[in-house]
Amino acid sequence: MRGAMLTTLLLLQAAAHSPAVTPKSPGEIVAAAPDAAWRDISPLDLLVLELVNGARVTMRLAPDWAPVHVANIRALAKARWWDGTSVNRVQDNYVVQWGDATEKKPLPQGVVAPPPAEYWRGLGSVWMRALPYRDAYATKVGHSGGWPVASDGKSAWLVHCYGMLGVGRGLAPDTGSGAELYTVTGHAPRHLDRNIATVGRVLEGIEALTSLPRGTGNLGFYEKAEQRVPIRSIRLGTEVTDVPRWQYLDETSAAFAAYADARANRRDAFFNIPAGGVDICNVPVPVRRKP
Amino acid sequence: MRGAMLTTLLLLQAAAHSPAVTPKSPGEIVAAAPDAAWRDISPLDLLVLELVNGARVTMRLAPDWAPVHVANIRALAKARWWDGTSVNRVQDNYVVQWGDATEKKPLPQGVVAPPPAEYWRGLGSVWMRALPYRDAYATKVGHSGGWPVASDGKSAWLVHCYGMLGVGRGLAPDTGSGAELYTVTGHAPRHLDRNIATVGRVLEGIEALTSLPRGTGNLGFYEKAEQRVPIRSIRLGTEVTDVPRWQYLDETSAAFAAYADARANRRDAFFNIPAGGVDICNVPVPVRRKP
Repeated sequence: MRGAMLTTLLLLQAAAHSPAVTPKSPGEIVAAAPDAAWRDISPLDLLVLELVNGARVTMRLAPDWAPVHVANIRALAKARWWDGTSVNRVQDNYVVQWGDATEKKPLPQGVVAPPPAEYWRGLGSVWMRALPYRDAYATKVGHSGGWPVASDGKSAWLVHCYGMLGVGRGLAPDTGSGAELYTVTGHAPRHLDRNIATVGRVLEGIEALTSLPRGTGNLGFYEKAEQRVPIRSIRLGTEVTDVPRWQYLDETSAAFAAYADARANRRDAFFNIPAGGVDICNVPVPVRRKP
Repeated sequence: MRGAMLTTLLLLQAAAHSPAVTPKSPGEIVAAAPDAAWRDISPLDLLVLELVNGARVTMRLAPDWAPVHVANIRALAKARWWDGTSVNRVQDNYVVQWGDATEKKPLPQGVVAPPPAEYWRGLGSVWMRALPYRDAYATKVGHSGGWPVASDGKSAWLVHCYGMLGVGRGLAPDTGSGAELYTVTGHAPRHLDRNIATVGRVLEGIEALTSLPRGTGNLGFYEKAEQRVPIRSIRLGTEVTDVPRWQYLDETSAAFAAYADARANRRDAFFNIPAGGVDICNVPVPVRRKP
């Protein structure tokens, strides 16, 4: 919240005056996490979007949560179906969405349309590390396999946090083929949870999407064809040669526990009053390029 | 979540198949709210930022919540102190911040520096229309005078929702003069609540800030001076001739109650499962230009 120079100056003053150890910030805790606390993300689960300007957005898919939708997305990427399509919708504080603006491009063979409504899972099949805080939408929230998860005691679902990846659809019974994708770019629109297939998250490069001009049409769609942002390609991670290996911080690790606690109780120098709680989308799962 | 053409098509189908009345969406409820449900915002509380490209951001100040900070902001605007300063920080999913990048520009006469820590108010002085849902950060959340408010039973404070306006500061005992301002541009960073002076909100034009290129320096600061986005002027609403009158939807109105309920329980055609709850920042206070 403060200028860079001012920060430096004040941190130096703080260091001079208090020899006691300053509690670590969430970022410092993550930076100090041992290698054993990190889990590899399978290259099979990576999806790489490249805009015509060369900007790259790397995503992780969630096949455990929406297997048919994710299989469709893989089939679409293998068929290079998205190449030459575009970002068509940029709605402030909501989503950026891409796909075939004509809505007439035939889907490749092997794509199941419509897929089942993979919007939640039976709770029996889902373990989560729960957060000990209240939530307006669910009786329990936490993390599972590197994902933000919520539950009502009967089922569990992925949470629409910032940067999560979802599948556009029409009215039910449509469930969305996976050809039209969006990522969350504002305050978590959790009313979408359980109403739509949530299929992954952005790992890196979201700013190439979030800094695009907002669409001025209904729902943030671009009104003119020339406003759309062309997509050069969307590829599976296994098809791109220079994609790094990615890891996420294991929610069962001590480092994650310390990180989540620090997100709820900021004790680093800037904060006077730790909140004493945190909502699930303010505990984003840390990721890194594998060292 | 769906293409414009597809939406039209499917809504027509839905209309043909179901003669029953479709429940109104939150937006439809707001559009149908009677004039009596709207409250005027004082032109004295408007602040208008204009970038050199002509884009305008209109803000409402919250003098009831941070009177000395707001008095400082008014004094700075009257002195035209921000003219020629710049947007210096654009941190993805967090804040856009502006002020004097040199941090050396003298403050005008009449600015109290540092002001008191106006980060919360005694609860006795605050009425709120509470939301009946759980919250991770507070024992009660709701709306008061057109603002999102939270409480711990002893004090009440403005909530750092998307578009709220805050005062940058250094480490305590600094409280920020008001010369360095930011607006929230991502998932509500509620750990900042009670740690910083929250002094208003954006009413219109936030996309001029949210679509700026992200800063690549520490905390999203621009690394080079030429990346900064120059500010032509920041003026009080009373000093700008063509500023419209603004209104907010009164939280004590029946229309607001219906709106808040619909935000928690989406029954419009797109939704299969209403969430049954909503967090305070997903009930943004509707505003409009006075008709």
